[in-house]
Amino acid sequence: MSKKKKVNAAILIIGNEILSGRTQDKNIIFLSNWLNTKCGISVTEVRIIPDVEKVIIKNIRQLSKEFHYVFTTGGIGPTHDDITAQSIAKAFKVKYNFHKEAYKILENYYGKNKFNDGRKKMAKMPVNANLIYNPSSAAPGFVTKNVLSLPGVPSILNSMIDNCKKYLVKGLKIHSKTLNLFTVESNISKSLSVIQKKYKKFVEIGSYPFFRLGKIGVSVVSRSTSKTKLVKVHKELIKQVKIKKIKILKI
Amino acid sequence: MSKKKKVNAAILIIGNEILSGRTQDKNIIFLSNWLNTKCGISVTEVRIIPDVEKVIIKNIRQLSKEFHYVFTTGGIGPTHDDITAQSIAKAFKVKYNFHKEAYKILENYYGKNKFNDGRKKMAKMPVNANLIYNPSSAAPGFVTKNVLSLPGVPSILNSMIDNCKKYLVKGLKIHSKTLNLFTVESNISKSLSVIQKKYKKFVEIGSYPFFRLGKIGVSVVSRSTSKTKLVKVHKELIKQVKIKKIKILKI
Repeated sequence: MSKKKKVNAAILIIGNEILSGRTQDKNIIFLSNWLNTKCGISVTEVRIIPDVEKVIIKNIRQLSKEFHYVFTTGGIGPTHDDITAQSIAKAFKVKYNFHKEAYKILENYYGKNKFNDGRKKMAKMPVNANLIYNPSSAAPGFVTKNVLSLPGVPSILNSMIDNCKKYLVKGLKIHSKTLNLFTVESNISKSLSVIQKKYKKFVEIGSYPFFRLGKIGVSVVSRSTSKTKLVKVHKELIKQVKIKKIKILKI
Repeated sequence: MSKKKKVNAAILIIGNEILSGRTQDKNIIFLSNWLNTKCGISVTEVRIIPDVEKVIIKNIRQLSKEFHYVFTTGGIGPTHDDITAQSIAKAFKVKYNFHKEAYKILENYYGKNKFNDGRKKMAKMPVNANLIYNPSSAAPGFVTKNVLSLPGVPSILNSMIDNCKKYLVKGLKIHSKTLNLFTVESNISKSLSVIQKKYKKFVEIGSYPFFRLGKIGVSVVSRSTSKTKLVKVHKELIKQVKIKKIKILKI
Protein backbone atom coordinates (compact mmCIF):
# COMPACT_ATOMS: atom_id res chain seq x y z
CA MET A 1 0.00 0.00 0.00
CA SER A 2 1.30 3.40 -0.94
CA LYS A 3 -0.18 6.50 0.73
CA LYS A 4 -2.43 9.20 -0.63
CA LYS A 5 -3.88 12.07 1.40
CA LYS A 6 -7.62 11.70 1.18
CA VAL A 7 -9.00 8.45 -0.12
CA ASN A 8 -12.72 7.72 -0.23
CA ALA A 9 -14.97 4.79 -1.03
CA ALA A 10 -18.61 4.00 -1.65
CA ILE A 11 -20.35 0.80 -0.56
CA LEU A 12 -22.99 -0.72 -2.82
CA ILE A 13 -25.12 -3.31 -1.04
CA ILE A 14 -26.88 -5.44 -3.63
CA GLY A 15 -29.78 -7.47 -2.31
CA ASN A 16 -33.55 -7.50 -2.03
CA GLU A 17 -33.34 -9.07 1.42
CA ILE A 18 -31.89 -5.90 2.94
CA LEU A 19 -34.34 -3.59 1.14
CA SER A 20 -37.38 -5.63 2.16
CA GLY A 21 -36.47 -5.39 5.84
CA ARG A 22 -36.02 -9.15 6.08
CA THR A 23 -32.35 -8.96 7.02
CA GLN A 24 -30.42 -6.51 9.19
CA ASP A 25 -27.35 -5.41 7.24
CA LYS A 26 -24.09 -5.96 9.09
CA ASN A 27 -21.64 -5.31 6.27
CA ILE A 28 -21.84 -1.50 6.20
CA ILE A 29 -20.58 -1.00 9.74
CA PHE A 30 -17.91 -3.69 9.32
CA LEU A 31 -16.58 -2.33 6.01
CA SER A 32 -16.68 1.30 7.19
CA ASN A 33 -14.75 0.49 10.33
CA TRP A 34 -12.21 -1.65 8.51
CA LEU A 35 -11.64 0.93 5.77
CA ASN A 36 -11.37 3.74 8.30
CA THR A 37 -9.08 2.14 10.82
CA LYS A 38 -6.98 -0.19 8.67
CA CYS A 39 -6.71 1.80 5.46
CA GLY A 40 -7.44 5.45 6.27
CA ILE A 41 -10.21 5.33 3.67
CA SER A 42 -13.45 7.23 4.38
CA VAL A 43 -16.74 5.75 3.26
CA THR A 44 -18.60 8.76 1.89
CA GLU A 45 -21.66 7.11 0.40
CA VAL A 46 -23.60 3.89 0.80
CA ARG A 47 -26.37 2.64 -1.45
CA ILE A 48 -28.61 -0.37 -1.08
CA ILE A 49 -30.20 -1.53 -4.31
CA PRO A 50 -32.21 -4.52 -5.56
CA ASP A 51 -30.92 -7.45 -7.67
CA VAL A 52 -31.95 -5.75 -10.90
CA GLU A 53 -29.41 -5.63 -13.73
CA LYS A 54 -30.06 -2.15 -15.06
CA VAL A 55 -30.06 -0.70 -11.55
CA ILE A 56 -26.73 -2.36 -10.73
CA ILE A 57 -25.20 -1.14 -14.00
CA LYS A 58 -26.33 2.44 -13.44
CA ASN A 59 -25.01 2.54 -9.89
CA ILE A 60 -21.67 0.91 -10.73
CA ARG A 61 -21.07 3.45 -13.49
CA GLN A 62 -22.00 6.42 -11.28
CA LEU A 63 -20.15 5.39 -8.14
CA SER A 64 -16.97 4.16 -9.85
CA LYS A 65 -16.62 7.59 -11.44
CA GLU A 66 -17.30 9.54 -8.26
CA PHE A 67 -15.22 7.63 -5.71
CA HIS A 68 -11.72 6.16 -5.48
CA TYR A 69 -13.11 2.73 -4.68
CA VAL A 70 -16.47 0.99 -4.74
CA PHE A 71 -17.13 -2.07 -2.59
CA THR A 72 -20.06 -4.21 -3.64
CA THR A 73 -21.55 -6.87 -1.38
CA GLY A 74 -23.95 -9.62 -2.39
CA GLY A 75 -25.10 -11.27 -5.58
CA ILE A 76 -22.02 -13.37 -6.35
CA GLY A 77 -23.43 -16.77 -5.34
CA PRO A 78 -24.74 -19.67 -7.44
CA THR A 79 -28.45 -18.83 -7.78
CA HIS A 80 -30.55 -17.04 -10.40
CA ASP A 81 -30.77 -13.85 -8.31
CA ASP A 82 -26.96 -13.56 -8.13
CA ILE A 83 -26.29 -11.19 -11.00
CA THR A 84 -23.61 -8.86 -9.67
CA ALA A 85 -20.72 -10.25 -11.74
CA GLN A 86 -22.53 -10.14 -15.08
CA SER A 87 -23.93 -6.68 -14.34
CA ILE A 88 -20.48 -5.27 -13.52
CA ALA A 89 -19.10 -6.77 -16.73
CA LYS A 90 -21.87 -4.99 -18.64
CA ALA A 91 -21.33 -1.74 -16.75
CA PHE A 92 -17.70 -1.66 -17.88
CA LYS A 93 -18.38 -3.27 -21.27
CA VAL A 94 -15.98 -6.14 -20.64
CA LYS A 95 -16.57 -9.82 -21.34
CA TYR A 96 -18.28 -12.01 -18.75
CA ASN A 97 -16.87 -15.52 -18.79
CA PHE A 98 -15.14 -18.25 -16.79
CA HIS A 99 -12.11 -16.94 -14.94
CA LYS A 100 -9.40 -19.58 -15.30
CA GLU A 101 -7.93 -19.33 -11.83
CA ALA A 102 -11.32 -19.01 -10.11
CA TYR A 103 -12.51 -22.10 -12.03
CA LYS A 104 -9.49 -24.11 -10.83
CA ILE A 105 -9.93 -22.97 -7.23
CA LEU A 106 -13.59 -24.02 -7.20
CA GLU A 107 -12.98 -27.30 -9.06
CA ASN A 108 -10.32 -28.23 -6.51
CA TYR A 109 -12.52 -27.22 -3.61
CA TYR A 110 -15.63 -29.18 -4.66
CA GLY A 111 -13.96 -32.03 -6.57
CA LYS A 112 -14.76 -32.69 -10.23
CA ASN A 113 -17.86 -34.79 -9.49
CA LYS A 114 -19.57 -32.21 -7.33
CA PHE A 115 -18.64 -29.22 -9.46
CA ASN A 116 -22.16 -28.61 -10.80
CA ASP A 117 -23.49 -25.73 -12.90
CA GLY A 118 -24.46 -23.58 -9.92
CA ARG A 119 -20.95 -23.84 -8.53
CA LYS A 120 -19.39 -23.24 -11.93
CA LYS A 121 -21.37 -20.01 -12.15
CA MET A 122 -19.30 -18.65 -9.26
CA ALA A 123 -16.21 -18.83 -11.51
CA LYS A 124 -17.85 -16.57 -14.07
CA MET A 125 -16.94 -12.89 -13.81
CA PRO A 126 -15.58 -9.98 -15.81
CA VAL A 127 -12.57 -11.44 -17.67
CA ASN A 128 -9.19 -10.18 -16.48
CA ALA A 129 -10.66 -9.42 -13.06
CA ASN A 130 -8.23 -9.79 -10.15
CA LEU A 131 -9.28 -12.28 -7.51
CA ILE A 132 -9.98 -11.65 -3.84
CA TYR A 133 -9.25 -14.99 -2.23
CA ASN A 134 -11.81 -16.55 0.07
CA PRO A 135 -10.33 -18.63 2.90
CA SER A 136 -13.67 -19.79 4.26
CA SER A 137 -15.75 -21.03 1.32
CA ALA A 138 -13.39 -20.84 -1.70
CA ALA A 139 -15.58 -18.83 -4.12
CA PRO A 140 -13.44 -15.74 -4.73
CA GLY A 141 -14.45 -12.11 -4.89
CA PHE A 142 -13.01 -10.01 -7.68
CA VAL A 143 -11.72 -6.59 -8.61
CA THR A 144 -12.91 -4.88 -11.80
CA LYS A 145 -11.21 -1.51 -12.32
CA ASN A 146 -11.83 0.29 -8.99
CA VAL A 147 -14.73 -1.94 -7.96
CA LEU A 148 -14.14 -4.67 -5.37
CA SER A 149 -16.88 -7.31 -5.22
CA LEU A 150 -17.47 -9.31 -2.06
CA PRO A 151 -20.17 -11.78 -0.98
CA GLY A 152 -23.15 -10.74 1.13
CA VAL A 153 -22.80 -13.29 3.95
CA PRO A 154 -21.05 -11.30 6.70
CA SER A 155 -18.88 -14.13 8.08
CA ILE A 156 -17.49 -14.91 4.62
CA LEU A 157 -16.97 -11.24 3.77
CA ASN A 158 -15.11 -10.73 7.05
CA SER A 159 -12.81 -13.66 6.33
CA MET A 160 -11.85 -12.19 2.93
CA ILE A 161 -11.37 -8.57 3.86
CA ASP A 162 -7.62 -8.62 4.44
CA ASN A 163 -7.15 -9.92 0.91
CA CYS A 164 -8.51 -6.62 -0.39
CA LYS A 165 -5.62 -4.64 1.06
CA LYS A 166 -3.21 -5.18 -1.79
CA TYR A 167 -5.61 -3.51 -4.22
CA LEU A 168 -5.99 -0.34 -2.14
CA VAL A 169 -4.00 2.87 -1.86
CA LYS A 170 -3.92 3.82 1.78
CA GLY A 171 -5.12 7.25 2.98
CA LEU A 172 -4.10 9.15 6.08
CA LYS A 173 -5.54 7.64 9.24
CA ILE A 174 -8.58 9.47 10.60
CA HIS A 175 -8.32 9.89 14.36
CA SER A 176 -11.30 10.52 16.60
CA LYS A 177 -12.05 11.62 20.14
CA THR A 178 -15.41 11.21 21.86
CA LEU A 179 -16.78 13.16 24.77
CA ASN A 180 -19.88 11.67 26.40
CA LEU A 181 -21.84 14.33 28.21
CA PHE A 182 -24.82 14.21 30.55
CA THR A 183 -26.69 17.03 28.86
CA VAL A 184 -29.01 17.70 25.93
CA GLU A 185 -27.88 18.89 22.51
CA SER A 186 -29.55 22.29 22.66
CA ASN A 187 -27.48 23.10 25.78
CA ILE A 188 -24.21 22.85 23.90
CA SER A 189 -25.22 23.61 20.32
CA LYS A 190 -23.90 27.21 20.41
CA SER A 191 -20.48 26.27 21.78
CA LEU A 192 -20.12 23.40 19.33
CA SER A 193 -21.00 25.67 16.48
CA VAL A 194 -18.34 28.24 17.46
CA ILE A 195 -15.61 25.61 17.85
CA GLN A 196 -16.61 23.86 14.62
CA LYS A 197 -16.39 27.14 12.69
CA LYS A 198 -12.93 27.86 14.09
CA TYR A 199 -11.54 24.46 13.07
CA LYS A 200 -13.73 23.67 10.08
CA LYS A 201 -10.78 23.03 7.77
CA PHE A 202 -9.20 20.40 9.99
CA VAL A 203 -11.72 18.84 12.34
CA GLU A 204 -15.24 17.56 11.88
CA ILE A 205 -17.41 17.69 14.99
CA GLY A 206 -20.57 15.61 15.24
CA SER A 207 -23.10 15.51 18.07
CA TYR A 208 -25.24 12.42 18.75
CA PRO A 209 -27.88 12.07 21.46
CA PHE A 210 -27.93 8.83 23.45
CA PHE A 211 -30.07 7.20 26.11
CA ARG A 212 -28.04 5.19 28.55
CA LEU A 213 -28.66 3.90 32.08
CA GLY A 214 -31.95 5.74 32.04
CA LYS A 215 -30.26 9.07 31.40
CA ILE A 216 -30.17 11.31 28.37
CA GLY A 217 -26.79 12.36 27.03
CA VAL A 218 -24.86 13.55 24.01
CA SER A 219 -21.76 12.05 22.43
CA VAL A 220 -19.61 14.73 20.85
CA VAL A 221 -17.31 13.12 18.32
CA SER A 222 -14.38 15.00 16.76
CA ARG A 223 -12.60 13.50 13.76
CA SER A 224 -9.43 14.61 12.01
CA THR A 225 -6.32 13.38 10.21
CA SER A 226 -4.31 15.72 12.47
CA LYS A 227 -3.78 14.51 16.05
CA THR A 228 -2.55 17.93 17.17
CA LYS A 229 -5.66 19.72 15.92
CA LEU A 230 -7.84 17.05 17.48
CA VAL A 231 -6.24 17.56 20.90
CA LYS A 232 -6.76 21.31 20.60
CA VAL A 233 -10.45 20.90 19.78
CA HIS A 234 -10.86 18.41 22.61
CA LYS A 235 -9.36 20.88 25.09
CA GLU A 236 -11.65 23.67 23.92
CA LEU A 237 -14.65 21.39 24.18
CA ILE A 238 -13.74 20.41 27.75
CA LYS A 239 -13.28 24.08 28.67
CA GLN A 240 -16.81 24.85 27.46
CA VAL A 241 -18.21 21.83 29.24
CA LYS A 242 -16.63 22.97 32.53
CA ILE A 243 -18.02 26.49 32.13
CA LYS A 244 -21.47 25.01 31.70
CA LYS A 245 -20.92 22.57 34.60
CA ILE A 246 -21.88 19.60 32.48
CA LYS A 247 -20.95 16.15 33.84
CA ILE A 248 -18.68 14.03 31.63
CA LEU A 249 -19.47 10.33 31.48
CA LYS A 250 -16.35 8.19 31.71
CA ILE A 251 -16.35 4.86 29.87
CA MET B 1 -55.16 6.22 2.65
CA SER B 2 -56.37 5.50 -0.84
CA LYS B 3 -54.88 2.56 -2.77
CA LYS B 4 -52.52 2.48 -5.74
CA LYS B 5 -51.10 -0.67 -7.26
CA LYS B 6 -47.34 -0.40 -6.91
CA VAL B 7 -45.98 2.24 -4.61
CA ASN B 8 -42.28 2.62 -3.91
CA ALA B 9 -40.05 4.64 -1.63
CA ALA B 10 -36.42 5.49 -1.09
CA ILE B 11 -34.77 5.98 2.28
CA LEU B 12 -32.10 8.64 2.66
CA ILE B 13 -30.07 8.25 5.85
CA ILE B 14 -28.27 11.51 6.57
CA GLY B 15 -25.44 11.22 9.06
CA ASN B 16 -21.68 10.94 9.33
CA GLU B 17 -22.01 8.61 12.31
CA ILE B 18 -23.45 5.81 10.18
CA LEU B 19 -20.90 6.29 7.37
CA SER B 20 -17.95 6.27 9.74
CA GLY B 21 -18.93 2.91 11.20
CA ARG B 22 -19.48 4.46 14.63
CA THR B 23 -23.18 3.62 14.79
CA GLN B 24 -25.13 0.58 13.58
CA ASP B 25 -28.11 1.84 11.60
CA LYS B 26 -31.43 0.54 12.87
CA ASN B 27 -33.78 2.78 10.91
CA ILE B 28 -33.51 1.06 7.52
CA ILE B 29 -34.87 -2.31 8.68
CA PHE B 30 -37.57 -0.62 10.79
CA LEU B 31 -38.78 1.70 8.02
CA SER B 32 -38.66 -1.03 5.35
CA ASN B 33 -40.69 -3.40 7.48
CA TRP B 34 -43.21 -0.75 8.43
CA LEU B 35 -43.66 0.48 4.86
CA ASN B 36 -43.94 -3.06 3.56
CA THR B 37 -46.33 -4.51 6.08
CA LYS B 38 -48.42 -1.47 7.08
CA CYS B 39 -48.57 0.43 3.81
CA GLY B 40 -47.79 -2.00 0.97
CA ILE B 41 -44.95 0.32 -0.04
CA SER B 42 -41.70 -1.24 -1.30
CA VAL B 43 -38.40 0.37 -0.42
CA THR B 44 -36.44 0.15 -3.66
CA GLU B 45 -33.38 2.18 -2.81
CA VAL B 46 -31.51 3.29 0.28
CA ARG B 47 -28.72 5.82 0.43
CA ILE B 48 -26.53 6.84 3.33
CA ILE B 49 -24.86 10.22 2.90
CA PRO B 50 -22.87 12.69 5.02
CA ASP B 51 -24.15 15.92 6.59
CA VAL B 52 -22.99 17.99 3.60
CA GLU B 53 -25.44 20.48 2.11
CA LYS B 54 -24.71 20.02 -1.59
CA VAL B 55 -24.78 16.23 -1.21
CA ILE B 56 -28.15 16.35 0.54
CA ILE B 57 -29.58 18.71 -2.11
CA LYS B 58 -28.40 16.50 -4.98
CA ASN B 59 -29.82 13.35 -3.45
CA ILE B 60 -33.16 14.91 -2.50
CA ARG B 61 -33.63 16.17 -6.06
CA GLN B 62 -32.71 12.81 -7.62
CA LEU B 63 -34.67 10.56 -5.29
CA SER B 64 -37.81 12.70 -5.10
CA LYS B 65 -38.06 12.51 -8.89
CA GLU B 66 -37.45 8.76 -9.11
CA PHE B 67 -39.63 7.44 -6.29
CA HIS B 68 -43.15 7.99 -5.01
CA TYR B 69 -41.84 8.85 -1.54
CA VAL B 70 -38.52 9.66 0.06
CA PHE B 71 -37.99 9.18 3.79
CA THR B 72 -35.05 11.05 5.29
CA THR B 73 -33.68 10.27 8.73
CA GLY B 74 -31.30 12.40 10.76
CA GLY B 75 -30.09 15.96 10.78
CA ILE B 76 -33.17 17.69 12.19
CA GLY B 77 -31.85 18.34 15.71
CA PRO B 78 -30.55 21.54 17.33
CA THR B 79 -26.80 21.38 16.55
CA HIS B 80 -24.58 22.81 13.80
CA ASP B 81 -24.37 19.48 11.97
CA ASP B 82 -28.19 19.26 11.67
CA ILE B 83 -28.73 20.72 8.21
CA THR B 84 -31.41 18.49 6.70
CA ALA B 85 -34.27 21.03 6.88
CA GLN B 86 -32.37 23.90 5.27
CA SER B 87 -30.93 21.60 2.59
CA ILE B 88 -34.38 20.26 1.64
CA ALA B 89 -35.68 23.84 1.42
CA LYS B 90 -32.83 24.65 -0.96
CA ALA B 91 -33.37 21.47 -2.98
CA PHE B 92 -36.97 22.50 -3.66
CA LYS B 93 -36.21 26.24 -3.80
CA VAL B 94 -38.69 27.04 -1.04
CA LYS B 95 -38.14 29.38 1.90
CA TYR B 96 -36.55 28.06 5.10
CA ASN B 97 -38.01 29.76 8.14
CA PHE B 98 -39.85 29.30 11.42
CA HIS B 99 -42.91 27.10 11.06
CA LYS B 100 -45.66 28.71 13.14
CA GLU B 101 -47.22 25.53 14.49
CA ALA B 102 -43.87 23.83 15.11
CA TYR B 103 -42.69 26.93 16.98
CA LYS B 104 -45.77 26.86 19.20
CA ILE B 105 -45.41 23.14 19.91
CA LEU B 106 -41.78 23.55 20.96
CA GLU B 107 -42.40 26.71 22.98
CA ASN B 108 -45.15 24.95 24.92
CA TYR B 109 -43.00 21.87 25.43
CA TYR B 110 -39.90 23.66 26.76
CA GLY B 111 -41.57 26.69 28.33
CA LYS B 112 -40.69 30.24 27.26
CA ASN B 113 -37.64 30.50 29.56
CA LYS B 114 -35.94 27.37 28.33
CA PHE B 115 -36.76 27.86 24.66
CA ASN B 116 -33.19 28.71 23.60
CA ASP B 117 -31.73 29.20 20.11
CA GLY B 118 -30.83 25.52 19.61
CA ARG B 119 -34.38 24.50 20.39
CA LYS B 120 -35.83 27.25 18.23
CA LYS B 121 -33.78 25.91 15.32
CA MET B 122 -35.92 22.77 15.41
CA ALA B 123 -38.94 24.90 14.44
CA LYS B 124 -37.17 26.08 11.29
CA MET B 125 -38.05 24.14 8.15
CA PRO B 126 -39.29 24.58 4.58
CA VAL B 127 -42.25 26.97 4.91
CA ASN B 128 -45.65 25.37 4.28
CA ALA B 129 -44.28 21.96 5.24
CA ASN B 130 -46.80 19.62 6.85
CA LEU B 131 -45.87 18.43 10.31
CA ILE B 132 -45.26 14.87 11.48
CA TYR B 133 -46.11 15.01 15.18
CA ASN B 134 -43.62 13.67 17.68
CA PRO B 135 -45.25 12.16 20.80
CA SER B 136 -41.93 11.44 22.54
CA SER B 137 -39.81 14.58 22.34
CA ALA B 138 -42.07 17.20 20.71
CA ALA B 139 -39.78 18.36 17.85
CA PRO B 140 -41.84 17.49 14.78
CA GLY B 141 -40.76 15.91 11.52
CA PHE B 142 -42.09 17.45 8.33
CA VAL B 143 -43.29 16.69 4.83
CA THR B 144 -41.99 18.70 1.87
CA LYS B 145 -43.62 17.61 -1.41
CA ASN B 146 -43.06 13.83 -1.44
CA VAL B 147 -40.22 13.91 1.11
CA LEU B 148 -40.94 12.89 4.72
CA SER B 149 -38.25 13.95 7.19
CA LEU B 150 -37.78 12.08 10.45
CA PRO B 151 -35.16 12.22 13.20
CA GLY B 152 -32.22 9.81 13.36
CA VAL B 153 -32.70 8.52 16.91
CA PRO B 154 -34.50 5.18 16.39
CA SER B 155 -36.75 5.31 19.47
CA ILE B 156 -38.05 8.77 18.52
CA LEU B 157 -38.47 7.82 14.86
CA ASN B 158 -40.42 4.72 15.89
CA SER B 159 -42.76 6.76 18.07
CA MET B 160 -43.58 9.10 15.16
CA ILE B 161 -44.02 6.61 12.37
CA ASP B 162 -47.79 6.18 12.59
CA ASN B 163 -48.18 9.92 12.08
CA CYS B 164 -46.72 9.49 8.58
CA LYS B 165 -49.63 7.34 7.43
CA LYS B 166 -51.98 10.16 6.52
CA TYR B 167 -49.46 11.49 3.98
CA LEU B 168 -49.10 8.16 2.14
CA VAL B 169 -51.02 6.45 -0.63
CA LYS B 170 -51.20 2.78 0.24
CA GLY B 171 -49.99 0.12 -2.21
CA LEU B 172 -51.05 -3.49 -2.50
CA LYS B 173 -49.71 -5.59 0.37
CA ILE B 174 -46.69 -7.69 -0.55
CA HIS B 175 -47.05 -11.21 0.81
CA SER B 176 -44.13 -13.54 1.38
CA LYS B 177 -43.47 -17.18 2.09
CA THR B 178 -40.18 -18.59 3.36
CA LEU B 179 -38.84 -22.11 3.02
CA ASN B 180 -35.82 -22.89 5.20
CA LEU B 181 -33.86 -25.80 3.73
CA PHE B 182 -30.96 -27.83 5.02
CA THR B 183 -28.98 -27.70 1.80
CA VAL B 184 -26.58 -25.45 -0.08
CA GLU B 185 -27.59 -22.96 -2.75
CA SER B 186 -25.85 -24.71 -5.64
CA ASN B 187 -28.00 -27.80 -4.96
CA ILE B 188 -31.22 -25.97 -5.73
CA SER B 189 -30.09 -23.17 -8.04
CA LYS B 190 -31.34 -24.90 -11.20
CA SER B 191 -34.83 -25.62 -9.86
CA LEU B 192 -35.16 -22.10 -8.47
CA SER B 193 -34.15 -20.66 -11.78
CA VAL B 194 -36.79 -22.67 -13.67
CA ILE B 195 -39.58 -21.74 -11.25
CA GLN B 196 -38.52 -18.08 -11.18
CA LYS B 197 -38.62 -17.89 -14.97
CA LYS B 198 -42.09 -19.40 -15.08
CA TYR B 199 -43.53 -16.89 -12.58
CA LYS B 200 -41.27 -13.91 -13.20
CA LYS B 201 -44.13 -11.51 -13.80
CA PHE B 202 -45.83 -12.25 -10.51
CA VAL B 203 -43.43 -13.63 -7.94
CA GLU B 204 -39.91 -12.69 -6.91
CA ILE B 205 -37.84 -15.56 -5.52
CA GLY B 206 -34.73 -14.89 -3.47
CA SER B 207 -32.30 -17.38 -1.97
CA TYR B 208 -30.24 -16.58 1.12
CA PRO B 209 -27.68 -18.87 2.77
CA PHE B 210 -27.73 -19.12 6.59
CA PHE B 211 -25.71 -20.75 9.34
CA ARG B 212 -27.85 -21.94 12.21
CA LEU B 213 -27.34 -24.47 14.99
CA GLY B 214 -24.01 -25.34 13.42
CA LYS B 215 -25.65 -26.26 10.13
CA ILE B 216 -25.60 -24.64 6.74
CA GLY B 217 -28.92 -23.91 5.10
CA VAL B 218 -30.75 -21.77 2.58
CA SER B 219 -33.82 -19.61 3.06
CA VAL B 220 -35.88 -19.43 -0.10
CA VAL B 221 -38.14 -16.38 0.08
CA SER B 222 -40.97 -15.82 -2.39
CA ARG B 223 -42.70 -12.45 -2.51
CA SER B 224 -45.78 -11.35 -4.40
CA THR B 225 -48.83 -9.12 -4.25
CA SER B 226 -50.88 -12.17 -5.34
CA LYS B 227 -51.54 -14.75 -2.63
CA THR B 228 -52.73 -17.32 -5.19
CA LYS B 229 -49.56 -17.10 -7.26
CA LEU B 230 -47.50 -17.27 -4.09
CA VAL B 231 -49.17 -20.50 -3.01
CA LYS B 232 -48.57 -22.00 -6.47
CA VAL B 233 -44.87 -21.16 -6.36
CA HIS B 234 -44.59 -22.49 -2.83
CA LYS B 235 -46.13 -25.82 -3.90
CA GLU B 236 -43.76 -26.13 -6.86
CA LEU B 237 -40.79 -25.36 -4.62
CA ILE B 238 -41.84 -28.04 -2.11
CA LYS B 239 -42.24 -30.56 -4.95
CA GLN B 240 -38.66 -29.91 -6.09
CA VAL B 241 -37.37 -30.10 -2.53
CA LYS B 242 -39.04 -33.50 -2.07
CA ILE B 243 -37.57 -34.84 -5.34
CA LYS B 244 -34.12 -33.82 -4.11
CA LYS B 245 -34.82 -35.25 -0.63
CA ILE B 246 -33.87 -32.00 1.06
CA LYS B 247 -34.89 -31.55 4.70
CA ILE B 248 -37.15 -28.60 5.51
CA LEU B 249 -36.43 -26.76 8.73
CA LYS B 250 -39.59 -25.87 10.63
CA ILE B 251 -39.55 -22.68 12.69
